[in-house]
Amino acid sequence: MSKVYNFGAGPAMLPEPVMEKIQQEWLDYQGMGVSVIEISHRAKEFVAILEDAQALFRELSGVPDNYRILFIHGGARMQFSALPLNLAGRKSGKRCLYFETGNFAKLASKDAKEFCNVEIAASSAETNYDRIPEYDPAIFTDDVSYVHITGNNTIYGTRWNQFPETGDVPLVADMTSEILSRQIDYSKFGVIYAGMQKNLGPSGMAMVIIREDLLGHADAKTPILLDYTAANKDNSLTNTTNTFAVYTTKLVLEWLKGQGGVAAIEKRNEAKSAKLYAVIDASDYYRGVAHPEHRSIMNVSFNLPSEELEAKFLKEAGAAGLYALKGHRNVGGIRASIYNPMPMAGVDALATFMQEFEKNNS
Amino acid sequence: MSKVYNFGAGPAMLPEPVMEKIQQEWLDYQGMGVSVIEISHRAKEFVAILEDAQALFRELSGVPDNYRILFIHGGARMQFSALPLNLAGRKSGKRCLYFETGNFAKLASKDAKEFCNVEIAASSAETNYDRIPEYDPAIFTDDVSYVHITGNNTIYGTRWNQFPETGDVPLVADMTSEILSRQIDYSKFGVIYAGMQKNLGPSGMAMVIIREDLLGHADAKTPILLDYTAANKDNSLTNTTNTFAVYTTKLVLEWLKGQGGVAAIEKRNEAKSAKLYAVIDASDYYRGVAHPEHRSIMNVSFNLPSEELEAKFLKEAGAAGLYALKGHRNVGGIRASIYNPMPMAGVDALATFMQEFEKNNS
Repeated sequence: MSKVYNFGAGPAMLPEPVMEKIQQEWLDYQGMGVSVIEISHRAKEFVAILEDAQALFRELSGVPDNYRILFIHGGARMQFSALPLNLAGRKSGKRCLYFETGNFAKLASKDAKEFCNVEIAASSAETNYDRIPEYDPAIFTDDVSYVHITGNNTIYGTRWNQFPETGDVPLVADMTSEILSRQIDYSKFGVIYAGMQKNLGPSGMAMVIIREDLLGHADAKTPILLDYTAANKDNSLTNTTNTFAVYTTKLVLEWLKGQGGVAAIEKRNEAKSAKLYAVIDASDYYRGVAHPEHRSIMNVSFNLPSEELEAKFLKEAGAAGLYALKGHRNVGGIRASIYNPMPMAGVDALATFMQEFEKNNS
Repeated sequence: MSKVYNFGAGPAMLPEPVMEKIQQEWLDYQGMGVSVIEISHRAKEFVAILEDAQALFRELSGVPDNYRILFIHGGARMQFSALPLNLAGRKSGKRCLYFETGNFAKLASKDAKEFCNVEIAASSAETNYDRIPEYDPAIFTDDVSYVHITGNNTIYGTRWNQFPETGDVPLVADMTSEILSRQIDYSKFGVIYAGMQKNLGPSGMAMVIIREDLLGHADAKTPILLDYTAANKDNSLTNTTNTFAVYTTKLVLEWLKGQGGVAAIEKRNEAKSAKLYAVIDASDYYRGVAHPEHRSIMNVSFNLPSEELEAKFLKEAGAAGLYALKGHRNVGGIRASIYNPMPMAGVDALATFMQEFEKNNS
C-alpha cells in the first residue's frame, strides 16, 4: 500500500531504518546462523547488546555515573507497583506524594495504595487535566519517601515544563511518553522509568534509571523480578529478559545517536509539534485539549466542532494514510502522537490534511 | 553461513516457517502499512491475534472450558512470586508443597518463601536431581493451598512421567520446557504456567492456564499485573502486553497445528530423543545425567569422560553448525535441547557427530 504515517500512542511507530535492519538480520544475527531472538540471554553476543544499550542510553541522556540503568519486565504499569515496593520503605511513615495530572498519573497512585501511604500533592482533575497543577513546594518535607510525577501526559497532551524542586526528597518521574525526546537534568531525579513502546522500542518492558543510593530499600514482599536491587546486582538478567525488546531498543538508540542525539531530536520535536499547534491556533475549528502553557511536544490532542466531524476526520485521515489518530476514550477527539521516530513529512501531511479538512467541512 | 542447528535451552530456536513469516510481514502487517509491533494492543487486529492464540492453545492442548488462558509479563520466574501471591490464600495456613527436582524447582520454592509457608514435599538433591523423587501421597491434605511441580527439568533432563494425584489440592506445574510437547490431561491441574521462550515463542512472558474456581484468592499486596483475577477480567490487557510475544506465539501455535498437533509432535519428540539416548546407551563414552526411567524428551544432558573432552566436543560441534550445546553450569557437560521446533535432521546431525567424535577421541 502507499505510505502510511502511524500516529498511534503506543505501541508506536519505530524508526524505519531500525525496522529494516531487524528484518535484514532476522534469520542470521551477525553470521551466527540463528536469529537474535534465538540466542541465550547469557550468550556473549546478547550481553554485548544489553551493555551497548545501557552505554548508548547513558551517552545520549547524559545520566550521571551514580545512576544505574535497569531493564524490567512489564512496562510502566509494572513500575506503578514496583516503585512503592522499592522506595516507600525509605521513611517509616511510607508517605508518598503523587501529582495527579492525568489518567496514568492517577493509575500510578491507585496501584501504589496497597504498598504505601499515598497523598495527592496536587491535581488538575478540575480542569480535566488540561494543565500541570499549581502546588506548594513546602509539601516536600524530609519524611516523604518520594514524590511522583508523570513527565508527559499522553492522553491530554500536557507536560511538565519546570520539574518540581523536591530538595532531598527523591523525585520520581514516569517518562514513558517522552524519554529521550528532550534534554533533562537527570541529577534532579531519584528514579526515572519509562515503558519502552513509545520512544524506545517494542512493548512489554521498562527502563528504570535509579540513583545508586536509593537501592536497598525494597519491602521483603517484593517479587524478585520487581526488586531494583536484585536487577542491579544481576545487571537485569535475574531471569531471561525480553531479549527482543533489549535488542530493538539498542537499535533505536543507535538510530537516535545518528540523528544527532537528544539535543537535535528535541529541536525537531519542537518544530514538529509547533506545526500542528500552529494549525490549531490559527483556527476556531480545532480546539486544543492542553492549556497552551503546558503543551506536550509528543502528543497533540484536539477536538473538532462535533463528534460527527471527528468521526469523519478519522475516517478520511485513515484513508489518506494517517493512521491511529483516534483520541483516548477519556477525552475523545483526535490525538497525534509524534514521538521521536515520526518524520517531519508525517507531520506536514497531517497539518495539510487538517487545513483541507477544515476548508471542506466548515 | 551453512546450516546451523540451534540446541540452545532458551531463548531457543523457533520454527523456520514462523521466522520466515515474521520477516515477510515485518514492515506491513496484513496490508496495514505498519508493523504488527507498531499497532495498539487494543486495535482490533491485535485483539484478534491474542484471541486466536488463546483459541489455538485451547484446541491444541485440549484444556477444558473451565480454564482461563492468560498472558503475563516476565516469564516463568515471575510466576514463582505470582503463584503464591494468588493461590496461597486459599487456605488459612498458607501451606504450599514444593517438589524439589532441580534448579528451577528450587528457585520456585525460594521465591515463594516470602509469600507462603513453603514445605518441600520431596527432593532428589541427594542424587543431584537425576530423577523424580519418591513421595508419600498422604501429604496432600486438604489444608494445603497447592502442590507445585516442575514438569520437565531443563538442566538435568528429567521429567515427570506420572503426575502426582493430589485429589482436591490444586496441582500446579511449571511446564516451561515441555508445554505442548506431549499430551497432558489438563483437568488434573489447577494451574499450569510456562515461560514462552522454549516451545511457545520469544522470551519475556508466560502463559498461565488456571482453573476458573481458583481465581479470586490474591493477596491484597499483589502487584496488579501479577494478579490472575485482574488478568482474566481484562483478558490479559490490563496494560500494554508484550505484543511481539503474543503475535509470535500465535504463529508458533499455527505451525504446531500444521504439524499435526500435540499427538503428532509428541511422537516426533519421542523419536528425536530416542535417537540421542540410543547413542548414549550404546556407549560407555557418553554418560547420561538423568536416570533412564526419568528421562526428558526435551533436554538430553550427558557427560564425556573428561572436561577436556567436553570442551573439545563443544568446540568441534560449534564448528560443525551444532550450536549452544554447552550444559548448564550446575552439571557441566553437554545438553541438547530439542524442543518442538528442532527438526529430525538436527538430531540426526548431532547423533552422527557424537558417534564420530567418540570414534576419533577414544
